[in-house]
Amino acid sequence: MITREFQPLDYLKEEQMEQIHLGAMEALEGDGVEFFLPEARNILQKAGAKVRGDNVFIPRELVTEQVALAPSEFTLHARNPEKNVVVGGNNAVTAPGYGSPYIMDYIQQKRRSSEYKDYVAFTKLTANSNNFDVTGGVLVEPNDIPDHLRHAKMFQAAVKHSDKCLMGSAMGQKKAEESLEMAGLLFGGVDEIRKNPALISLINTQSPLQFDRRMLEAMTVYARNNQPVLISALAMTGTTSPVTLAGSLVQQVAEILSGVVLAQLINPGTPVVFGSSSSVVDLRTGDLAIGSPESTKMFCAIAQMARYYGLPSRGGGALTDSLSPDAQSGYESMMVALNCVLSGINFMLHSAGMLENYMTMSYEKFIIDDEIMGMVGEFTRPMAIDKENLAVDTILRHGSGGHYVGDEHTYKHMKETRIPLISSRDRYKAEGDYTDAAQQAHEYCKTVLENYQDPPLDEKIEEELNRYIENIKE
Amino acid sequence: MITREFQPLDYLKEEQMEQIHLGAMEALEGDGVEFFLPEARNILQKAGAKVRGDNVFIPRELVTEQVALAPSEFTLHARNPEKNVVVGGNNAVTAPGYGSPYIMDYIQQKRRSSEYKDYVAFTKLTANSNNFDVTGGVLVEPNDIPDHLRHAKMFQAAVKHSDKCLMGSAMGQKKAEESLEMAGLLFGGVDEIRKNPALISLINTQSPLQFDRRMLEAMTVYARNNQPVLISALAMTGTTSPVTLAGSLVQQVAEILSGVVLAQLINPGTPVVFGSSSSVVDLRTGDLAIGSPESTKMFCAIAQMARYYGLPSRGGGALTDSLSPDAQSGYESMMVALNCVLSGINFMLHSAGMLENYMTMSYEKFIIDDEIMGMVGEFTRPMAIDKENLAVDTILRHGSGGHYVGDEHTYKHMKETRIPLISSRDRYKAEGDYTDAAQQAHEYCKTVLENYQDPPLDEKIEEELNRYIENIKE
Repeated sequence: MITREFQPLDYLKEEQMEQIHLGAMEALEGDGVEFFLPEARNILQKAGAKVRGDNVFIPRELVTEQVALAPSEFTLHARNPEKNVVVGGNNAVTAPGYGSPYIMDYIQQKRRSSEYKDYVAFTKLTANSNNFDVTGGVLVEPNDIPDHLRHAKMFQAAVKHSDKCLMGSAMGQKKAEESLEMAGLLFGGVDEIRKNPALISLINTQSPLQFDRRMLEAMTVYARNNQPVLISALAMTGTTSPVTLAGSLVQQVAEILSGVVLAQLINPGTPVVFGSSSSVVDLRTGDLAIGSPESTKMFCAIAQMARYYGLPSRGGGALTDSLSPDAQSGYESMMVALNCVLSGINFMLHSAGMLENYMTMSYEKFIIDDEIMGMVGEFTRPMAIDKENLAVDTILRHGSGGHYVGDEHTYKHMKETRIPLISSRDRYKAEGDYTDAAQQAHEYCKTVLENYQDPPLDEKIEEELNRYIENIKE
Repeated sequence: MITREFQPLDYLKEEQMEQIHLGAMEALEGDGVEFFLPEARNILQKAGAKVRGDNVFIPRELVTEQVALAPSEFTLHARNPEKNVVVGGNNAVTAPGYGSPYIMDYIQQKRRSSEYKDYVAFTKLTANSNNFDVTGGVLVEPNDIPDHLRHAKMFQAAVKHSDKCLMGSAMGQKKAEESLEMAGLLFGGVDEIRKNPALISLINTQSPLQFDRRMLEAMTVYARNNQPVLISALAMTGTTSPVTLAGSLVQQVAEILSGVVLAQLINPGTPVVFGSSSSVVDLRTGDLAIGSPESTKMFCAIAQMARYYGLPSRGGGALTDSLSPDAQSGYESMMVALNCVLSGINFMLHSAGMLENYMTMSYEKFIIDDEIMGMVGEFTRPMAIDKENLAVDTILRHGSGGHYVGDEHTYKHMKETRIPLISSRDRYKAEGDYTDAAQQAHEYCKTVLENYQDPPLDEKIEEELNRYIENIKE
């Protein structure tokens, strides 16, 4: 969890946020949102929304009233309470990966389908790092597991190899309920996690202005049981939203808020996160441009709009459009992640490992992003300014032209500099001294996986969980 | 020139700046600064400073009084007036390279001595880019030119191949005077540039708390002639300054302000820039860590301290400790450059091309940094928020589930997305689709240099300048 001590970067002006808000209200009232689940439409209709077919027109008063019920921050509980995190405030909570169906093989320089063994390995890398808070969810797609078991096998791996916070499945009612029951086994019953939320789930909109049935079913299960949901607009500029950043934001805000209203109507006070994983599309080629400054601006605006509504925000990640862990993957991921943290994004999915926008996971990129998040975290750590650190006495003791190497003040503080994971600080000495962070990451990753040890897990709980999973039917 | 429209990032709290200021005043009064030029000491003594040997003790009242005389921003003039820049305010002016004695050969993956041909090539790359404002100075060290001619040959190349802003030599009185005279030939006389400053120079401190003779001579020449000087602390934590960031800042502020006082006493109103190119040292290995979050924090604090004194600031650049244009060089350079721009650094030397901290220039890294600066510039460009961009009508026209591809609003705005120089947005299609930004940069660089055309230059001026340089004696 990265905690920023200084004021967030305010990208938009106050009146600009107001304009985006008013545009979103106009869209919600005039255009409406399609909810492809009758139950969801009924709930909204009962609360005063107008329903026509699948379309729900939500009056702005209802939005204001319901949004006010959602908490501005909440605690997400891990099975190891030391790893609980607070989503909201000045925190940025990080979760790597999410949903990539491919792995980029660094040695062979080619893409292959991702498998369960990759899921397990990335869980271990996540658990091992100091820079990531949440595992579980679709860290990477385990394509070799039958669909009806994927969420369960992923949950099993996340619990066995990590004691960090977990995510739940958003793929329909059955999987959401099973996620909840499995979490119940881990935390001493579903009642317990109703009091202390322990599963966060990703509910995407279907842009423009729709929510599909599976997502709505899952949201309903989680909201009823007081589990937090990341309600995230998933728009692509010029294709599923207006091409302009401002226009795309208007639509995204309308989508997200309509989801927030529904979650609050299902269960007032449900923890929700105002989210976006929308992308800018370069329409000259039709390619996504998620590592672009334009996409970054959109995330910064989302963070600000979330503050405007008093909600925690989600956006960004270590995003890149590059196909390899090269310089581009470094500068793009740093730009997006750093600006998101500075702007006050509170939950950063996709915070490690992704290449080729969201399509591919890379072990080397994962380690590189681990380094990036560590650097961003260190940057946000406040500078110590007190008598000891200001060191005026030390300066006066040495005088002009002196040197500080042997000084006791130097000895006392010299170990406070962050040690990089993989970044080189060596000087060039001889031919062949030509560093490559991807190679360093490759080796570091191997070492971590070879030496990884699972955190302790109560045997009884493990058995119960395994038995539950064995009994899951198609 | 990057112009930031939103508020800068305030890394330090108001009272923390006050504490750093008070510490610096204590150091200036109690410890003093050594000025290794009698004339400089005399000037300071006459103004009320106490002198003992080379050491000058500067009372805080003198600091306050003299710092107030320096302008908070100033225009730096280029021979093409369209390329003038304003140093100060919300602007970040960029200058690539500075002083590296080596070139990293990308093909051979080894380091070699830098030569005049490299200087010429980097001048062309700087002139060609939309992201750099200043050339000249020691863009890269031309080791094959005799020392007494280096500044002149560099000036000649900068003028011939570029019409952007220029830097002057800081290597003693003779070279500074010759720089000034050469600029006089270009701008219609030295009197003209006294009115419209056209040469900015880098005056480094010799930490801790010293100024060497050459730098003081050069500063004297430039200040007398109203040319701006970057007065820059060049401290290394734990070796030539206290090991703590706060302590290093106290010393740096003392050093910089003592230089500012001298410049104002020489010529009240001399444009000065409150600068730092100080680095954090990782004392566990003795290596510099200029691409570290700690070094970045120091630059952010420098930007804020400069605002505290009402002066423009200098710091940062596209800094990295990597030896190659790899992922590390990308994430480190982006982190430093972006945070500097967000924090309000007004002049960014070292803004392209450097590897191995300050030691080595790389053509590929130069192009990568060109991309990085373009991205930072695009990020700071404000989002258009007006009726047309908010696009509420467009959203209402399409409704939920619609699509925007064929829409006239999309056609109208689709070309507004920044086109990357080298970054890939391609999808993986077949084996071998494995991008490398360094390779892309290598090819881009070749194309630029092959097609480069010098900007027009008055033949008479060119002849005069060539004649002047031929007559320079050792």
